Amino acid sequence: MSKRQLITPRTLKGFRDYPPEAMIPRERLIDTARRVYRSYGFSPIDTPALEYLEILAGKGGEETDKQLYKFEDHGGRQVGLRFDLTVPLARFAAQHVNKLGTPLKRYQIAAVWRGENTQRGRYREFMQCDFDTIGTRSIAADVETVLVVHDLFRAIGFSEFTIRMNNRMVLGGLLERLDLADRATPVLRTLDKLGKIGPQRVADEMTEIAAITRQQAEQIVKLSEIAGSNDDVLRQIEPLVAGSETGEAGLGKLEAVVGGVRAAGVPDRRLVLDVSIARGLDYYTGTVVETFLDALPEIGSVCSGGRYDNLAELYTKQELPGIGASLGLDRLLAAMEELNMVEKVATLAPVFIPYFDKDRLHDYLKLAAALRAAGIGVEIFPEPKKLGGQLKYADRRGYRIALIAGADEFDRGTCQVKDLAAAKQQDVPLEDDAASVIAAVEAILGNHG
Amino acid sequence: MSKRQLITPRTLKGFRDYPPEAMIPRERLIDTARRVYRSYGFSPIDTPALEYLEILAGKGGEETDKQLYKFEDHGGRQVGLRFDLTVPLARFAAQHVNKLGTPLKRYQIAAVWRGENTQRGRYREFMQCDFDTIGTRSIAADVETVLVVHDLFRAIGFSEFTIRMNNRMVLGGLLERLDLADRATPVLRTLDKLGKIGPQRVADEMTEIAAITRQQAEQIVKLSEIAGSNDDVLRQIEPLVAGSETGEAGLGKLEAVVGGVRAAGVPDRRLVLDVSIARGLDYYTGTVVETFLDALPEIGSVCSGGRYDNLAELYTKQELPGIGASLGLDRLLAAMEELNMVEKVATLAPVFIPYFDKDRLHDYLKLAAALRAAGIGVEIFPEPKKLGGQLKYADRRGYRIALIAGADEFDRGTCQVKDLAAAKQQDVPLEDDAASVIAAVEAILGNHG
Repeated sequence: MSKRQLITPRTLKGFRDYPPEAMIPRERLIDTARRVYRSYGFSPIDTPALEYLEILAGKGGEETDKQLYKFEDHGGRQVGLRFDLTVPLARFAAQHVNKLGTPLKRYQIAAVWRGENTQRGRYREFMQCDFDTIGTRSIAADVETVLVVHDLFRAIGFSEFTIRMNNRMVLGGLLERLDLADRATPVLRTLDKLGKIGPQRVADEMTEIAAITRQQAEQIVKLSEIAGSNDDVLRQIEPLVAGSETGEAGLGKLEAVVGGVRAAGVPDRRLVLDVSIARGLDYYTGTVVETFLDALPEIGSVCSGGRYDNLAELYTKQELPGIGASLGLDRLLAAMEELNMVEKVATLAPVFIPYFDKDRLHDYLKLAAALRAAGIGVEIFPEPKKLGGQLKYADRRGYRIALIAGADEFDRGTCQVKDLAAAKQQDVPLEDDAASVIAAVEAILGNHG
Repeated sequence: MSKRQLITPRTLKGFRDYPPEAMIPRERLIDTARRVYRSYGFSPIDTPALEYLEILAGKGGEETDKQLYKFEDHGGRQVGLRFDLTVPLARFAAQHVNKLGTPLKRYQIAAVWRGENTQRGRYREFMQCDFDTIGTRSIAADVETVLVVHDLFRAIGFSEFTIRMNNRMVLGGLLERLDLADRATPVLRTLDKLGKIGPQRVADEMTEIAAITRQQAEQIVKLSEIAGSNDDVLRQIEPLVAGSETGEAGLGKLEAVVGGVRAAGVPDRRLVLDVSIARGLDYYTGTVVETFLDALPEIGSVCSGGRYDNLAELYTKQELPGIGASLGLDRLLAAMEELNMVEKVATLAPVFIPYFDKDRLHDYLKLAAALRAAGIGVEIFPEPKKLGGQLKYADRRGYRIALIAGADEFDRGTCQVKDLAAAKQQDVPLEDDAASVIAAVEAILGNHG
């Protein structure tokens, strides 16, 4: 063979490999999200990574357009890689809703791509984890959205987190009363920066960008000072929106969601009304939610969403109202790591069988088959190397139990069951069906919790 | 708002949307594959969809290069979308194996992209579902690979399927004895077409392409006539490879795999030696396997793989031998649909609560929360529409049970539990913790399945 220049193995800037230690918690989180979404009757859909460019372009604002991965395909078509799951959902809904019917409750968990500036620590490929209910204006769907977010964080393992909720109609009513209804878009986009830059700079920016008076800006920014129990907050909103039809309707909706969520048994502290939450995206028209981890509020919202009046107006004349939210998978995983909530293992099977006696492969295979038939995952080391090295490998991978059997054990008809975490071992009879070994393994796995 | 031209909602040629009915069986199949892979100690990894073009180009042959989706990114880099999971695995292994250690047992389930000719019914985006053991030459890994494939098809629900196995060293030994060792590549590539074009045309093509005599070609093609029990086949191979070191070693390996797989309890009929299987890919050097559904052999192999000596030679000087296989997810799903093995449902929650009495949303929310706490998925219809229409929706989605409660039921303190499949209903006391309703639901779900 001729000498060849080696190609440097590397990933593109902004892209990552996920080795097992990183992928296992990610798969676990995705499984949890799917389980919760499914428990509310949401069903999975998938859409292509590549779409016609005209479907994607101009849908996420100027910055998103710049970040779009786009090119000409083999057939001369202009195509792009999806940059979120909302635009594909809108296209999907416009195309299939008449066949599928409403309410269309779907989840989609998939990668999206954006040519972000990596200097800000952003990745160019990341997962989104969305659920939406399309085709209904009922407040029951808003209540459900909050419940799904709540159950999701409980199922992941959080008990201290806060879902902050507002309704854009309340903000709309307030702006109406300030005679600023026509400047809602720039005002709300600026208000959305409250958590990042603080009330003073938000007020500055509002007077500059939205061309409103300093006094008006300060009245809007003061919304963030409204606090207390949800009932208190509702009472404080009342005078602010009184006389505005939109604002009063928004207040009613906030009240209804708070009541519904309480009826479903969610502790009051986990859903907090926050009149200063706007969510920057133009398409939100009603309920908006953000979710914060009480232990790490500074990382911002890890699950956000809201209600929209018309999801797919670019693709169909059919009006498709709905509500949905998106779990920030990567941000949440980073937070969980910081909070030591991520177990570091590189295997999902609990039992390891060293290939100890080189003539006994068939016995190891038989033992492993019996354990697997009982639902217990097992790895057999592939080579009859020294036992110490094999056990080190097992430890590094995160195996919890080793089943050790050499010539002596086979002669005695036993097997050593070794609890690797506790560094304890016991000799167990090795029957044809491995019943005693299975019982010993199950006892240890049960003990570990 | 100005009148706008609607954008036609459509997917690119060769790309597909997966509505719930298509996505649910797909997710189920992926879950099964993961469960089986994990039960042998394989761990998940993921790699980026986009790679440097130099990593991908020239790795899959001329046709794959033509089909590669490639473009220049924002930073002027030449990039491409992965066309399989083997090239990214090779790059990943070269980059990380020293840190991760061997054996490196990974699975990866992810989309790949090829600009295929759609006239042949091919898709341009499809899922691959691979597992590999890297860093060992031990025959124990070959045994395990066959066991994984076996357990996978059993877990999916097949009992009649055949894993056909060969060893490239046996073919190598035979070619040595025919003095054709230097023409192995074109001969084996042609032999691989046996299933598609039959022995006569394979012999024709061999004499043309590989420049061998008609007599030699016929001797090779005759390999497909070797039949009988695995022990019979092993005996028939012996004289064909006698005297060739490679061939005899290959025979020994076939024997060892057959013995190991038998020891693990796999019925003999499910692993069949077939000396005519070559697998076209150049990099296979030892064990090769293909898997056929007995009910649909004509669709070809639905799970194939083999052993290679050196996975990542383009990226590292380190020799990385290994073995792996790939489940053809889309082909298998199509086959399962043809065999009526795919249940048509559009929901993964079993219970439906109609929004019957418009003033009772809180009661429905409470009931649903109690069921979900007991691990039972529930959808509440979002709008208080007519009951008949809501039940039709439930039926169309595939819900199995409806819990119906209106003013009468709430007055009596009961709830109607309706088995939608059996069209039977019973009145059940509606307690605060919904214990009786949960018991009734569990009884029905248990009965069904």
